[in-house]
Amino acid sequence: MPRVTQDHLDARRRQILDGSRTCFTRHGYEGATVRRLEEATGLSRGAIFHHFRDKESLFLALAEDDAHRMAEVVAEQGLVQVMRDLIAVPAGAEVPDHPAYWLGTRLEVSRRLRTDPEFRARWAERSQELTSATRARLARQHAAGKLRDDVEVDVLTAYLELVLEGLVSHLAKGLSAEAMGPVLDLVEESVRRHRAAE
Amino acid sequence: MPRVTQDHLDARRRQILDGSRTCFTRHGYEGATVRRLEEATGLSRGAIFHHFRDKESLFLALAEDDAHRMAEVVAEQGLVQVMRDLIAVPAGAEVPDHPAYWLGTRLEVSRRLRTDPEFRARWAERSQELTSATRARLARQHAAGKLRDDVEVDVLTAYLELVLEGLVSHLAKGLSAEAMGPVLDLVEESVRRHRAAE
Repeated sequence: MPRVTQDHLDARRRQILDGSRTCFTRHGYEGATVRRLEEATGLSRGAIFHHFRDKESLFLALAEDDAHRMAEVVAEQGLVQVMRDLIAVPAGAEVPDHPAYWLGTRLEVSRRLRTDPEFRARWAERSQELTSATRARLARQHAAGKLRDDVEVDVLTAYLELVLEGLVSHLAKGLSAEAMGPVLDLVEESVRRHRAAE
Repeated sequence: MPRVTQDHLDARRRQILDGSRTCFTRHGYEGATVRRLEEATGLSRGAIFHHFRDKESLFLALAEDDAHRMAEVVAEQGLVQVMRDLIAVPAGAEVPDHPAYWLGTRLEVSRRLRTDPEFRARWAERSQELTSATRARLARQHAAGKLRDDVEVDVLTAYLELVLEGLVSHLAKGLSAEAMGPVLDLVEESVRRHRAAE
């Protein structure tokens, strides 16, 4: 067997993740059969499951990867920006390069959290990164005097995560993103330092 | 055949709705088989489908009935109170008399809206009542000078509905309601008239 470099392994892993993301988004977890995963990634099942133990592990790696990339956006631009990216996606579009490419995975995670207690346990360990990134950014903003200081950072973190949850669910129902821009302005403003009385 | 009074018909209809609510909540839409609906309501399938054309119509009537009762709470106490009722439900409890008895139906509506375009169309006609009640209450609050006046009532309505959506989804994932009290305080305060600068 030829020796493969780490770069090659990483590239192959990335190829599988990117291909399977589209597949999971389009067909859902159950509908993403091994045959479809082969087609979507352009690789054999042998190659796919050389890198991931099973479909569940592949999906978890994908969801974790997406959460990681969301956390990077949060660290630089905040969770409200993640939400603004989300409503900028054209309805029904498949947009792997779009900032909100992670919507499909996120929806599938939400659905499985509701119906699958085992998945809930496995995901719990992996879902802290986004919360931590949000809390860390809010703490920095707070230290810089940009945030309201009458509400604890933990409450503001939970508030922003709740709105994200609502937005994901709203879009999943096929409802319009159009009215959401001014709503996000309100959300953003409500975590900022108090306005002056009018 | 004996003549039945309207009161009798109404009572029977109520009996079917209340029994089937528990059944849909416990088993989900697909899991709520006709046999289980018979057990839950204490009535034969003949009696049930005398009042409702089919299971879909029964479920829609139930969801509409719940939305109507939520709208009544909204008219008197506002949508934030509906959310406060919701987080006061003990986790996993089945509470037909609790103010948030409608959570099960609401979750099932959310799930079916995501996966069933036909249901989406049938529900769209019936889902306006809660929005209208929320908007009407906000308009009254606005006229009474209790609301911030730099954001349109339609935006505030969409904002509160988005938070409700997030809360329903949050609880459906089995996540804790505990931290949500201070978050709802923040939500409530953010639609009110501007605070003075500190």
